[in-house]
Parts: sequence; C-alpha cells; structure tokens
Amino acid sequence: MPRMIRLAAAQLGAIHITDSRSHVVGRMITLLESAASQAVQVVLFPELAFTTFFPRYIIHNEQQLKAWYEHGDVTINADTRPLFDKAKELKIDISVGYAEATEDGQHFNTCIYFSGREGRVLSKYRKVHIPGTFEPDDDPDAVNHLEKRYFKPGDLGFQAFRVPGLEAQGPPVERGEPIFGMMICNDRRWAESWRVLGLQGVEIVLCGFNTPAFAPHTRSSLDKDPEQSERMALFHHKLVMQAHSYTNATYSVAAARSGYDDGKYKLIAGSCIIDPEGVLLAESKTLGDELVVADCDLELCRQGKGKTFAFDRHRRTEHYGRIVAQTGVVEPPRIGPSGA
Amino acid sequence: MPRMIRLAAAQLGAIHITDSRSHVVGRMITLLESAASQAVQVVLFPELAFTTFFPRYIIHNEQQLKAWYEHGDVTINADTRPLFDKAKELKIDISVGYAEATEDGQHFNTCIYFSGREGRVLSKYRKVHIPGTFEPDDDPDAVNHLEKRYFKPGDLGFQAFRVPGLEAQGPPVERGEPIFGMMICNDRRWAESWRVLGLQGVEIVLCGFNTPAFAPHTRSSLDKDPEQSERMALFHHKLVMQAHSYTNATYSVAAARSGYDDGKYKLIAGSCIIDPEGVLLAESKTLGDELVVADCDLELCRQGKGKTFAFDRHRRTEHYGRIVAQTGVVEPPRIGPSGA
Repeated sequence: MPRMIRLAAAQLGAIHITDSRSHVVGRMITLLESAASQAVQVVLFPELAFTTFFPRYIIHNEQQLKAWYEHGDVTINADTRPLFDKAKELKIDISVGYAEATEDGQHFNTCIYFSGREGRVLSKYRKVHIPGTFEPDDDPDAVNHLEKRYFKPGDLGFQAFRVPGLEAQGPPVERGEPIFGMMICNDRRWAESWRVLGLQGVEIVLCGFNTPAFAPHTRSSLDKDPEQSERMALFHHKLVMQAHSYTNATYSVAAARSGYDDGKYKLIAGSCIIDPEGVLLAESKTLGDELVVADCDLELCRQGKGKTFAFDRHRRTEHYGRIVAQTGVVEPPRIGPSGA
Repeated sequence: MPRMIRLAAAQLGAIHITDSRSHVVGRMITLLESAASQAVQVVLFPELAFTTFFPRYIIHNEQQLKAWYEHGDVTINADTRPLFDKAKELKIDISVGYAEATEDGQHFNTCIYFSGREGRVLSKYRKVHIPGTFEPDDDPDAVNHLEKRYFKPGDLGFQAFRVPGLEAQGPPVERGEPIFGMMICNDRRWAESWRVLGLQGVEIVLCGFNTPAFAPHTRSSLDKDPEQSERMALFHHKLVMQAHSYTNATYSVAAARSGYDDGKYKLIAGSCIIDPEGVLLAESKTLGDELVVADCDLELCRQGKGKTFAFDRHRRTEHYGRIVAQTGVVEPPRIGPSGA
C-alpha cells in the first residue's frame, strides 16, 4: 500500500543586499502558487529566505544589524505575513528559514513548519551547527562567513514531528501521519543531526541552505580555481544529503538560496529531493527561482528501516560513548621511534 | 610540509568453498610482493580473507563449522604464517581480516594490523556491526547472510592507534606517527563507527569487506534486476566510504573480496582509496586479485579537521543524547485527524 506525498523544494535565486522583504515574499508567493497548481502538499523554502545572506557582511551599526532579523511572530509581521496567508488560502504546508530575534534579545538561525491547512506552526527548529567564524578575516578581500557572530547555536535540539492531514490532498496515509524532521544548511554535514532524527523514525528531512560557491578566505589551493571550488561545494552538498538519507532510510528535501547575490557573491544551487536509498529523484537545473517537485512513497522507507538500518537489531550503543562524552578530538598517545 | 604515505588495497577475487588457506595465502603473498616492489608501506587485505565467505552457508556439523575459524595466533599458525613471515621479510605493514575463535570459544569477525617492520601485531579490531540474520531464510533458493549466527558483536570498540616507523620508507612524518583506525564491512555504513574514530583524530581508516552483488532473499523489487541490484550495492558502498571520509576529514582504504565464489555467488569489487575531501583517488578495475595503490599526503587532513569539521568548535553534544541513550527508534506520538 503506497503512502504517496508530493514534495517540493522552492529554490530562491539571487537576493541582493538592497532587496526588500516584500519583494522576496512576492517571489516566494509566485513559487507557492506554482506548487499549488501542481498539487504539491509541502514546500520547503531555503535558510534565511527573506533577505540576502547577511552573515557575509561585518555589521557594526546596532540598528542596521537589528534590521536583518525577524522580531515577533514571522507569520503575522507585515512584510512576511502575505506568504503565510497565501499558504492558508492554498491549503499548502510550507517550511521556511529566517533570522530570529527573540523577545529577550537572543538571535537564532531558525526555520518553522507552517501548516496551511491548519493555519498554524507545527514545529520550530533552530540551527545547531553554526559554521564560520566570529571575527572577520584579516584579509580585506576575503569573503567572510560570520554566522558564529550573528547566531547562537540552537537550543531546541532535533525534534521529529508528525504532520496530520496530508492525506486530505492525496491517497490515504495508512500507517499514521508522516514523520518530518528539520535541519538547516551546515547541519546536513553532521551525521549526528540525521541520526537523532533517524532515531525518531524520520521519513522526510527538510533542509534549507546557503552555500558559497567559493570561499576565498580559506586560502586553500582551491582558491586558485573557482570552478573546481564550486564543483567541490556541490559534490559535498549532494554527498552528505545522499549518504545520510540512505543511512537513515529517509527521504530528504534540500532548498538552496543560489545565484550571484549583489552580482558577485555566488551561492551554489543543487536544490534536490532524495529517496531513502540515497538516490536523487529531482534536482534544480538553474541558479534562479525554481520549483523542484517529486512524488515520494513513504512506504519505501520501510526496506531500509527494517533491514540494513534496523537500528534495534544492529546498533551497538556501548561503543558510541565518545560521541556524547567528548566534543573535540582526543588523539592516541605518540609511540616514538623505538616503539617504547 | 607533506606527510606522504603510500597505501594499497589488496583486492582478492573469487575464493571457492573448496579453496585451501594455503592456496589463498599464496595469492596474498603475490599481491604483497607486488606491493613491496612498488614501495607500498601499508597493504589492506579484505574481511575474512583466508577463506570463502562462509556465512552464506548453513552449517550444522560442529567440526565443519570449527574449520572455518582461525584458532590460536593467526600470525604463527601453519597455514597463515607464511603471509606474516613475508611481511616481515619485506618490512611492509599489513592489515588482514579473519574469523577468530578465542580460547574460551567465542567467535568474532576480526582484523589485525601487523607491522612487518616490527614483526608484531599493533592493533586488533572485532567487527561491531554484524549484519544479516541468525536463522536461514525459509526460501530454499535464498542466498543467506548468517553473520549473526557465526559471530558475536565485537567487544573492543573502535580504537584508533599510532603506527611508528612508517617514515623509514618515505619522507619524514613530522607531526607524529600517523593515526590509523580499522573497521570491517558493514561498519562502514554506520556513521558512529567513523565518528568514534574521527574523535580520536584518525587519518587513515582501513576497511575490508565482502558485499554480495545481489541479495535474492530480500524479495525487494531489485530481485528482478540483478544488474540494478549490483549497481546499487556499489553505489551505496562508495557513497558511505566517501561521505564518512569527508565528514571526518580522513583518508580511507577499502579492500574487497570480489568475484563469483563457487562460480555463482557474486561479490562486488569497488576496492578503493579515498581522500579527506571524499574524492576517489584510486579504484579497482577488475573482479579479481588486484592491487590498488595511492600516495596519500596526511597533511591534507588538516584542512577539514581544522575548519569545516573542527569538532571542538562546531559539535554540540548536548543535542546528541539519543545516539547513546537508545538503540532503536522511538517515534513521536500520533496526532490524529482532529489535531487533538
């Protein structure tokens, strides 16, 4: 008995530092209407979807910095509300990332799952693995990635959640509501993010991202060849999405902020939908606004979850202690030339 | 300052149920001599290298079963000793897998790292993630995979270890002896195996394997297309080797038992050496005995270990608790159609 769901990644192309939230939300609504016309049930928008990727700038002015975050309830704020109203009108579910400022002044890189059918937020996630640095690079020509400056690590953990009512727009979901999990960008490179969701039986992982196509500030050999650097960024992105989907027997959806922000800061595309065997089902073809759609049979998660990755039969937690007991590396002692 | 090491995977083609250990050891010595002539410093042989992959058979006779294991010290037993003597003569290091019977009657799927230069075992590993089943399939035509019947899960954990003296055959290893880790076959599909080694600063992961090219007893749709099944087996093998090497910034070497055992049980090849960016450096081209060689600059592990995968700066162990706290899946509660 299939458990079909139609999912989409809504890729967003270049967003410049001068682009307003209203402008971006207009583009998102266009993608959402296109999704609805194709009977898509859940649409994933990227990380930090409403603005350009501001952590590349060093911002000293307090007021300027404040303006990059969403304050209060993003689903009812004037600039962003039209997206959620449209989701309600179309009875379509969306997940979307944004820069969150809490009432007590904390900043998180956040995403929410908003049910258009129910008109409410079903789950919130705050990015756990914050990449980049706190201080800008000494090199004035470097492209910075200052996420550690602008966001605290998420404090909500990786909480899988059920989504009821998706059967309303498709065939019956016989074995209970689908189990979703969310992560953001760099989280996808960390097996721990996926396993914590996998241990909750996740069937669909949603992951929005902003990934620079090159990172001149690393001063690695790749700096000399931006095309090779971009190929590697795309290769690593798909490699971790495919491998972690396979090893947790889950579908996954990845939605990119892509293109040349401000006409010069290039972000990779690679928005995609992956099946529980780790196979790419659909992938973006452009650097611009684009909807990537796939029909997913959640029943296909059962082969992996019941056999190769039947956790209860195969995992040996008694040997995994270091994963939670230590954060950094503890190397084995040196032996020395004499073997003594 | 590069830290060069020349590594090899020694792939072993078909080994039939009737092939003696002496015959197989002769083939291994041929590969070892070829490696020495190419100035290889460390050679990895496959899992259960001395015999055919016997867990595919159901063996009721106690004496017959006993004959598949190595009893006592594999480095000095009459049939297997010539391999280790040759490693000493050639001053080359080897890692090799075998079925271990302990003095107190326990059975493990084991491998050792034997230093030919020092003439001794530097580390032993016993396979933790035992795949397959205890009972044979009801279908008399099924190909079984009875590892859970014939081996206990390993009791030694994942212990990284230093290997001194490798600089003797190459340029100086300036920053201390290389850090190795070992795993066996199915362990490579489990991110936990790699992370526990990664948390010890591993620079070279050795992984011997036996992977069926098709698994008729799964009764999945793949049964109908053996070629597609084999492509998927190879895809999954490389996917997990590449992704886990990248996410732990380590080299890895995988050595296959491959070919048509008994002329009919096909095992995939795919012996390979992978760099810390997850890129395939070298790969086997045949299903038979074959040496896969690559020069590896351990210094290249530093980019990943110091930046994207700088564990001490990025890991958030407070959110990883489930990984050790639960073995199997704990699903979120169902919500029901009313959302109540």
